[in-house]
Amino acid sequence: MDARPRLLLHEVGLRDGLQMESAVVPTERKIAWAEALLGSGVDLVQLGSFVHPGKVPQMADSDRLFEHFSAPGRKPAGVILSGLVLNEKGLERGLACGVEMFCMGVSASETHSRKNTGMAIEEANRRIVGMARSALAAGRRVQVSVQSAFGCGYEGTVPAERVVAIVGSFLEAGLTQLSLADTAGHATPDAVEGLYSRLLALDPRVEWTCHFHNTYGLALANCYAARRVGVTTFEASVAGLGGCPFTRVAGGNACTEDLVHAFQRDGLRPDVRLDALLGVAREVASFLGRDLDGSVYRSGPVPEPAHAGAAGS
Amino acid sequence: MDARPRLLLHEVGLRDGLQMESAVVPTERKIAWAEALLGSGVDLVQLGSFVHPGKVPQMADSDRLFEHFSAPGRKPAGVILSGLVLNEKGLERGLACGVEMFCMGVSASETHSRKNTGMAIEEANRRIVGMARSALAAGRRVQVSVQSAFGCGYEGTVPAERVVAIVGSFLEAGLTQLSLADTAGHATPDAVEGLYSRLLALDPRVEWTCHFHNTYGLALANCYAARRVGVTTFEASVAGLGGCPFTRVAGGNACTEDLVHAFQRDGLRPDVRLDALLGVAREVASFLGRDLDGSVYRSGPVPEPAHAGAAGS
Repeated sequence: MDARPRLLLHEVGLRDGLQMESAVVPTERKIAWAEALLGSGVDLVQLGSFVHPGKVPQMADSDRLFEHFSAPGRKPAGVILSGLVLNEKGLERGLACGVEMFCMGVSASETHSRKNTGMAIEEANRRIVGMARSALAAGRRVQVSVQSAFGCGYEGTVPAERVVAIVGSFLEAGLTQLSLADTAGHATPDAVEGLYSRLLALDPRVEWTCHFHNTYGLALANCYAARRVGVTTFEASVAGLGGCPFTRVAGGNACTEDLVHAFQRDGLRPDVRLDALLGVAREVASFLGRDLDGSVYRSGPVPEPAHAGAAGS
Repeated sequence: MDARPRLLLHEVGLRDGLQMESAVVPTERKIAWAEALLGSGVDLVQLGSFVHPGKVPQMADSDRLFEHFSAPGRKPAGVILSGLVLNEKGLERGLACGVEMFCMGVSASETHSRKNTGMAIEEANRRIVGMARSALAAGRRVQVSVQSAFGCGYEGTVPAERVVAIVGSFLEAGLTQLSLADTAGHATPDAVEGLYSRLLALDPRVEWTCHFHNTYGLALANCYAARRVGVTTFEASVAGLGGCPFTRVAGGNACTEDLVHAFQRDGLRPDVRLDALLGVAREVASFLGRDLDGSVYRSGPVPEPAHAGAAGS
C-alpha cells in the first residue's frame, strides 16, 4: 500500500485555458474534449465559467456544457464537474444547470480585485463568502480561493498577511475546500512552501488546492513545492493552456499531462490515462494552430526501453 | 547575513546548447555572447568541447575561444572557463589552450556509453579517472560527472546502484567536484532528492553539481529538488538551449535566466545581472530564428509595481 496521500487532479483548461484564447471554440468541440478529459481519470473537470457572455464570449456556452454532462450516463460517476462563478447571477445560472462544485475566489490584490470584480477586497470577500454559503446550502461543493496570492502583475508583492486574513475569513465561515491561485505566476518554490506551511497549520481539516501559472517557468516546480508541504489537489490545464485576461502578463497554467507524467514516473496516480490527456493536448494544439506550453505532448512520454535486458551488465 | 549556502551557476549553453544546433555559429558571434555571459556574474562559463571537428563542427573553434578568453583582461578574474573533454586527445588540446576547469563524464547507461564513447562503462570510467588525474596534476580544476544518471533514452531505467558505483570510483580517485547529468531528462524531483541524498551522505567534502534537461518540463523543479538536499552548483543554458545528439529525445537544459530569475525572487544571487542574461537569450533566439525553451526572455521579469503604494490598504 502506498502510504503517500492521494493526489487529486482538477483539469481547468476548458475554463482558464479557453477564456484566454481569441478563438471561440465551438461547443461540439468542447464537448468532445471534455468527454476525453472526463474519461481520463482526473478527479475534477472545470467545464466553464458563468460570466457575462458579452464580456467573455468564449464562456457563453457554459450552461449548455453543464446541462449536457449532467444528463445521466454522460460522465464517469466519480468525476466532479466544477464551474467558476464571479457573482450571484453566475451562481444562479450554475445552480440551474448542474454545477457540482462551485469555484470562486477573492483577490489578495486591491487592483486585481477592482479590475476583475469592480469591488475592493473587503466587499468582494463578503460577497464571495455569502455566495459560498448559498451554494453549500443548496447541497453543492464549494472551493474558495485567494487569487493573486503570491504577487500581482499590477501591485507586485502581495503581503502574506493579507492572504492569511482572507483565508481566516473563509475558515470562520466554515469553508474547508480552499485554494491559492498564483494568477500572475509570481510564486517561487520557496514562497509556496512558506505560505502554504503557514496556512496548513491553521486548520488540519482543510483540503488545500494549488493553482499555478507558468509565466516565469516555475509552475511544475511550484506544484512540487506545494505537494511537499501537504497540498493534495492540483489545478492544471491540458497542454498548459491558460492565463488570466485581467493581469498584465500571464502564462498558461501548470500543464496537466506534464504533471501526471511526472507523478506517474514516481508511482503516483497510475490510474490516470496519460494517453487520453496527450490526445486532447495534441488536438487542442492542432485546433489552435500553435505550440502550447506543455512538454510531453511534443516529446512523447519517457520511452519504454528499446531492448530490455541490454541494461543488465 | 544570508545563512543559506551560496549557489553557483555554470553556464553551459555555448557547449551543450550550440552542439545541438544544425547551424554553426560563427566564432565572432560566440565571442560576443561569451563576453556577455562572462560579465553577467555567473561563476563558470563552458566555452566549448574538444571533440573531433568532423563529428561536431559546431565545436571546431573551441581552442580559439579558450585562447581568446585566456588572454589577459578578456574576462572578469573570478569567472572560471570550463571545457568538456571526451578523451585524451581532447584533454591535450584543452591543456594547451587555457581550459581552467575540465568537465568529463562517464555514462551510467551501457548503451549511451557505447554510442557516446565507443566504450563500455567500465573502460570509460578507467579512462576518465586517468584523465581527471592528469588534469589535476597539471594544476587544473576537474569536474567529473555521471551521465544518464536518472535514466536513459535507450535503456530506460538506470539502476541507482550503478550511479553509486561510478561515484564510488570517483571518490576513491580523490575527485571531489562531482556532478550528475540527467542527459535524457528522465529525472523527477523525487528521484533527484533520493539519489543526491544518498550520494551526499558518502563524503561531505564533495561539491555537487546538477545538470538537468527539460525534455519533460521538469528541469527547474529538479533544480529546486537538488538544491533542497544540498546541491550547490547548477549547470544551465541561456535561453534553455541544449540537448544531447546521442540520445533519442533530449530537450534543452535548465534555462539559466529562468533559474536566476527564480533565485533572485527569493533573494539568492542578487549579484547576477539578469538583464545581461536576458540580452544574450534574446540574441540567441533571434540568431536561431525560433522560440527557445526559456520563459523569462519572452515574458520579461516579474514587473516592478506600476504604482507603488496602491497596494497598501
